[in-house]
Amino acid sequence: MVPDAQPQAVQHVPVRTAQPYGVMIGAGLLHRLPEHVTSEQVAIVCDENVAPLHAGAVRRNFREHGRLAELLVVEPGERSKSLSCLETLLEQLAAAAFSRDCTVIAIGGGVVTDLGGFLAASWLRGVNFVSVPTSLLGMVDAGVGGKTGLNLRSGKNLVGAFWQPQLVVADVETLRSLPEEQFRHGAVEFFKHALIGRPEQLQLLADPAFRPDAPAERLSSWLADNIAVKAGIVAADEREAGVRMHLNLGHTLGHALEGASGNELAHGEAVAYGILFAALLGKNRGLADLTPVALQLLRRVQPQPLPPFILSDLLPFIARDKKNRAGSQRFVLLEDAGRPFVADNVQQTELEAAWEELRSLVDGLVWEAAN
Amino acid sequence: MVPDAQPQAVQHVPVRTAQPYGVMIGAGLLHRLPEHVTSEQVAIVCDENVAPLHAGAVRRNFREHGRLAELLVVEPGERSKSLSCLETLLEQLAAAAFSRDCTVIAIGGGVVTDLGGFLAASWLRGVNFVSVPTSLLGMVDAGVGGKTGLNLRSGKNLVGAFWQPQLVVADVETLRSLPEEQFRHGAVEFFKHALIGRPEQLQLLADPAFRPDAPAERLSSWLADNIAVKAGIVAADEREAGVRMHLNLGHTLGHALEGASGNELAHGEAVAYGILFAALLGKNRGLADLTPVALQLLRRVQPQPLPPFILSDLLPFIARDKKNRAGSQRFVLLEDAGRPFVADNVQQTELEAAWEELRSLVDGLVWEAAN
Repeated sequence: MVPDAQPQAVQHVPVRTAQPYGVMIGAGLLHRLPEHVTSEQVAIVCDENVAPLHAGAVRRNFREHGRLAELLVVEPGERSKSLSCLETLLEQLAAAAFSRDCTVIAIGGGVVTDLGGFLAASWLRGVNFVSVPTSLLGMVDAGVGGKTGLNLRSGKNLVGAFWQPQLVVADVETLRSLPEEQFRHGAVEFFKHALIGRPEQLQLLADPAFRPDAPAERLSSWLADNIAVKAGIVAADEREAGVRMHLNLGHTLGHALEGASGNELAHGEAVAYGILFAALLGKNRGLADLTPVALQLLRRVQPQPLPPFILSDLLPFIARDKKNRAGSQRFVLLEDAGRPFVADNVQQTELEAAWEELRSLVDGLVWEAAN
Repeated sequence: MVPDAQPQAVQHVPVRTAQPYGVMIGAGLLHRLPEHVTSEQVAIVCDENVAPLHAGAVRRNFREHGRLAELLVVEPGERSKSLSCLETLLEQLAAAAFSRDCTVIAIGGGVVTDLGGFLAASWLRGVNFVSVPTSLLGMVDAGVGGKTGLNLRSGKNLVGAFWQPQLVVADVETLRSLPEEQFRHGAVEFFKHALIGRPEQLQLLADPAFRPDAPAERLSSWLADNIAVKAGIVAADEREAGVRMHLNLGHTLGHALEGASGNELAHGEAVAYGILFAALLGKNRGLADLTPVALQLLRRVQPQPLPPFILSDLLPFIARDKKNRAGSQRFVLLEDAGRPFVADNVQQTELEAAWEELRSLVDGLVWEAAN
């Protein structure tokens, strides 16, 4: 350990899974990884964008601490979440003779933490994993919770493991190096958590200060508060047998939109539409009307326009969604902000009504220049 | 449940892992699988040899019970333990819309149970797995214990997961349909268990009745007794952090022989030589002299002759063995039959002496016509 050179406070969020771990949130944490990751062999997974920005410096840092550190670089984008890409990385670990005591560190967005996590889960039947999400999406969602996943031709995240990290490190400085669009898309999962379990954070929807260039202490504090929602749910339901389903708010339609559009819609964009869809399903059942909140979120996200789908374009993808157990149709809905539940047996007529409303609500929307 | 049509007793061996399960051993159990596997969706993984022999009938049986049952057939042999073969099977599960409630049943030898187990571990981040080993090797070893594995170009079993089955079913009738050679090779792991934890079973080395055509009740009883050794070790050490290493007796050299010979030597043959090697290392350290037992095992196995390797051909494979943590060299040795231990820091000079002795012992061996 070197003396703490950071004047700023580091936030800690505990994740009380069977093997408990913690999320550290603060500024400059990326440069202090060798203090927290003690393996002699470290494999750093990142994409071609993150390699020059952050990962190269992290590798140098480990080497200066006398460790064996290898960089495993993949192409940016969803296509790297494939079994063939995994195989390439596994062969690299084999070539470098990485042992069971090694640690895989994934530095990047959701693609890299999903891929790196499954790499750690499957190399020699499981080695240490440290997740270092650099995007807002990764910090509040993919980086925490132990879900790893790869895609098949047939669909997204159909392959994977539940494999908890030893540690999650969120360095808020990394948010500042990303295109502003990424922060907007990541905000969808942030506000999804607010809707599920931290309704007081919904006020940030209208707060112009909620931006990647906000002061580090404020960013860290917002993030810690938000990540605590996911940490609590994950600890209560590590393998997604119950309450963890709530995290799928907006995702059933979201995945269908991603699938039907051939991933033209980004994940955050698709889920933002999905949250509005869930809000409409709930309103039509006489629950609290959260469509204004969902529309406010859409305006903040400024997604691409909805492609001209009709509901029957989406139904096959909805039925295929892996959260639909043994064929039954289920959606996460909200009694009110902060009160999610799993609705089984959502009827086709409900889907049709909500889809019609959604179309008429969003087709007229025009985004302001920037938010 | 249908009334028990089997007059013969079924043996049960409990495996007290975190999620306990059981091994059922008896005659005719293959035809009763739908009683024990209750999923509505069943994926049966097998190879092209087992499909017509057993798996087709099992599928029919499930369908007659009103279940969705699909046959996933792979080529026989080690080459099917690949990520590309895994991907093909995963796409088949996706195409058939298998849900999280499905069960993957692997029927076959070690290749199929390793592959099927990892398929179950990784589909939708983990579904039910039932292991139905049909070979002696599978019944006493690969079928029990939750180790799943695939090969890379760089080496065997470098990829996988610890994924315990819900149930293991060993139908001793299936042993009778296999070439007699397979029983001889599988006997190596059987007697490895005897050496580790059931020395009284070593007397079967000289028992001509220990054959695949022995009466089912005797076979079942021998198997139950032997599987209990592995079940006890697995329960004590699910993730191979300690005593489970003992199961690697004979495997460090065995894997090296497989690797250096390009798998010309079968696993059982290679491990039989490896057990002799471990016996020699132990004798040279002044421990009990188990070389007579190891030679008796070799005579029973009747392996192919040892290729003309010198030790330095094997050393790179020994160093690469994944059980060698962070580069240190370790072997499982025996104080005496029933008293295994992990020897760290086995010296190069010890390896050389044992290898020379092994060569001179085996080069003169001639197998009798049949055993």
